Amino acid sequence: MKQMIGDIEVRAREELFINIHPIQAAGRLTPEAMKAMITYGDGYSTCDWCRQPFRLDKIQRPPIDEFHLELAKFVGMDQARVVPGARRGFQAVVSSLVEKGDSVIVSSLAHYTEFLAVEDVGGIVREVPLNQENVIAGENTAQKIEMVKKDTGKLPKLIVIDHFDYMFGNEHDIYGIAKVAKEYDIPFLANCAYSLGVMPINGREIGADFLVGSGHKSFASPAPSGILATTEEWADKVFRTTRMVGDVTKRKFGIKEVEMMGCTLMGANLIAMMASFPAVQERVKHWDDEVKKINYFIEEFLRIEGNRVLSEMPRKHTLTKVDTTESFDKIAQTHKRRGFFFSDELKKRRIVGEFPGATRQWKLNTYGLTWDQTKYLAEAFQDIARKYGITVA
Amino acid sequence: MKQMIGDIEVRAREELFINIHPIQAAGRLTPEAMKAMITYGDGYSTCDWCRQPFRLDKIQRPPIDEFHLELAKFVGMDQARVVPGARRGFQAVVSSLVEKGDSVIVSSLAHYTEFLAVEDVGGIVREVPLNQENVIAGENTAQKIEMVKKDTGKLPKLIVIDHFDYMFGNEHDIYGIAKVAKEYDIPFLANCAYSLGVMPINGREIGADFLVGSGHKSFASPAPSGILATTEEWADKVFRTTRMVGDVTKRKFGIKEVEMMGCTLMGANLIAMMASFPAVQERVKHWDDEVKKINYFIEEFLRIEGNRVLSEMPRKHTLTKVDTTESFDKIAQTHKRRGFFFSDELKKRRIVGEFPGATRQWKLNTYGLTWDQTKYLAEAFQDIARKYGITVA
Repeated sequence: MKQMIGDIEVRAREELFINIHPIQAAGRLTPEAMKAMITYGDGYSTCDWCRQPFRLDKIQRPPIDEFHLELAKFVGMDQARVVPGARRGFQAVVSSLVEKGDSVIVSSLAHYTEFLAVEDVGGIVREVPLNQENVIAGENTAQKIEMVKKDTGKLPKLIVIDHFDYMFGNEHDIYGIAKVAKEYDIPFLANCAYSLGVMPINGREIGADFLVGSGHKSFASPAPSGILATTEEWADKVFRTTRMVGDVTKRKFGIKEVEMMGCTLMGANLIAMMASFPAVQERVKHWDDEVKKINYFIEEFLRIEGNRVLSEMPRKHTLTKVDTTESFDKIAQTHKRRGFFFSDELKKRRIVGEFPGATRQWKLNTYGLTWDQTKYLAEAFQDIARKYGITVA
Repeated sequence: MKQMIGDIEVRAREELFINIHPIQAAGRLTPEAMKAMITYGDGYSTCDWCRQPFRLDKIQRPPIDEFHLELAKFVGMDQARVVPGARRGFQAVVSSLVEKGDSVIVSSLAHYTEFLAVEDVGGIVREVPLNQENVIAGENTAQKIEMVKKDTGKLPKLIVIDHFDYMFGNEHDIYGIAKVAKEYDIPFLANCAYSLGVMPINGREIGADFLVGSGHKSFASPAPSGILATTEEWADKVFRTTRMVGDVTKRKFGIKEVEMMGCTLMGANLIAMMASFPAVQERVKHWDDEVKKINYFIEEFLRIEGNRVLSEMPRKHTLTKVDTTESFDKIAQTHKRRGFFFSDELKKRRIVGEFPGATRQWKLNTYGLTWDQTKYLAEAFQDIARKYGITVA
């Protein structure tokens, strides 16, 4: 029987299934974060001990101030803020640096929220083409900058490139791009929504001016939550404090940061990030094992005749786009449940998170599965293949 | 012994104390919202059943789409969206309507986030003065509009006035202001952060073009969460969808709304709002009883010699600013714990939420207390007064 909260069904996918949903895997809460949700759920729960100077990231109890300092260190940048989702990080940076008509360099695999952040200020996105491996390289970025310069007579105001993209989970050359950005003296935002929190990330080593991370994508945190980090050089601009003065009251709100809209991510979302932080710091050290697991899975997956992988190989990320047009989709063509036969078979084996009904190109993510679960997952795919007469080598 | 989650103390103020914190009272979760926090805590929990057209407010399972329709109806507007906090609602409206150098009319008691939203786009706030009762009236608003017109040669682009302000909890004449706004044909945003979710609010009756509410202030919801509602007339502008096209890939993200940054308030925060919604719909019907309770409390509070109330009287809101300079502060002058003696005394009586150490002007909120708790609260204040030799009439 389905458990309900009013007309809302109780969600228990993570408890009852192996979940290979492409974007959910690394946002699953730690037990500590779950406790934080329960104890800090109430609206303004983080404000109990808010004192002078009255800003979220200065609160000492619970140790929110310390978390901010540690977070900046963890990502190898000078300053960090939490924001309600990576998109609000893009928005803050773009709103600070880009004016109407300005160009912003993005990836041909840019997340749509980067488009929106630029559109919101009246800027124009200019996409860097992918190379043959579906990767954004420094060289292509430099060429695009030259093209923008030629077209508009001006350099782009900002470069935003995803470390790993949402489509293939391919790694893009943010180190090379940072170098190019430096040569042209254009600020560079590395979108680490799929990497910050699952693998070691150091903004200084990358050479990025801004790092953005996603709490609900890769930091074992509830949505919306995200991270924006920057260098001392840029902090004054992006984290600038208000200068507005009330014309009648002469009020000022000196310490509040304009782009952050003052306090940013109050309540359980922030405390859950803090609660997950020790586990996140630990888990990034074991990223290589996660990479081994996805490559093991993919190897087994490719033993199924007709299966292909669209992401770069070998895998450097657990998020992977696969193509089963020549395997499971052939079954779907004549099955009375069409593509849903495949979801049915997975679900019978307690696996969810594929896009239901999709049997051509679709995405999966093995992040956080144990080796046993990974092997079980690989066997389940092969088992389904055999059941429908598809050869498994 | 203090329970801990790592270095984060477990918060149990609402369980162990009567909490009169000025901004926390109406953001306390309902039991249903708490359940939602637990079951929808994981990052992208709301995305299990996200299907075409792939936007949060269109998701049918759980019934997020229906919630959006019901929410618009509940606030008497045509369309509603959830946002990560009221401030993100201001930001969306201001960013849509206001350009660099434009004036925006705000209250002399405007919340600082309204300032920031205007500052972010390079606009200028112009404050309407308070009348003798510390209230913003339609008349004063009209005068301010005329003044801006005279000073700048242009009408303000937007009027943003708080229904109840954060300082005194006074009610401002949003009905009268809406009329003035109509006369000048200036869009009007009613900031109902302190009213939407605790009392009946109908945007159409008010005559507002935009309504903003706060989930964590007044909707029994976790932070950050908020509501932005508008009319059909303005929806196309503020909820406009993206028109950006990738120059290389020709990608479009047609249904994503620019100011919302696409999907807005995913995860437990949204589901908790939905879970609290039935209780919120019910509780607004009993606002008159909440008003009776604060007025009862204030009557008892004023029996303590020297106590004053700085908010308008009789109280129309549970958030109230009081002045105890001539009562408890006199004790604080010579007490070894200074103003903290008062916090100590309250805490002994299981009352928290006053600003610790403050014994001059400070705020409290009785929202959601039972009659028994309200009486207990009043008696506790009188008891403390008597203990220190202050006359109670």
